[in-house]
Amino acid sequence: MAALSCVNASALGLAYRRPGSSPRRMVVVRAEAINPDIRKTEEKVVDSVVVTDLAKPLTPYCRCWRSATFPLCDGSHVKHNKATGDNVGPLLLKKQ
Amino acid sequence: MAALSCVNASALGLAYRRPGSSPRRMVVVRAEAINPDIRKTEEKVVDSVVVTDLAKPLTPYCRCWRSATFPLCDGSHVKHNKATGDNVGPLLLKKQ
Repeated sequence: MAALSCVNASALGLAYRRPGSSPRRMVVVRAEAINPDIRKTEEKVVDSVVVTDLAKPLTPYCRCWRSATFPLCDGSHVKHNKATGDNVGPLLLKKQ
Repeated sequence: MAALSCVNASALGLAYRRPGSSPRRMVVVRAEAINPDIRKTEEKVVDSVVVTDLAKPLTPYCRCWRSATFPLCDGSHVKHNKATGDNVGPLLLKKQ
């Protein structure tokens, strides 16, 4: 398991302190969930698009799980990327 | 900022201890990145699909950022959901 300093830990888990390690240094490792609150009562959030039903020439679909108009993209990935240094973006469906 | 206990913290940040709080209780808050390693050299990972080019009647697109065939789904969300208790799933494009 990669040693991760607390600040740039890429995953969050049970916070634990290695035996004998100084209290200052905490390593936090967790397999992270990526969907904070979209349709959490559903076992798995799957959406379908019948492409012939697309109204606009270009329709962006969310992949950051922060959109208020999920499954459509509302630009929330910009704020998410800024806050986390991430680089996620939408899936663009083009009619032709 | 919501107080989050360390185990079910939904976000990881600078581990800090509130002044005067007992050493046992650590609150870890961070805005989490969700894309561990897909195209990290790109500023923002955006994919386009010209829907008329879709070959199959049903094409699943990844939204969990763990697929080895990204942007297409390869089922990696199953392992991710199991490891994290998350409930993410793909976007299914249907030709009709």
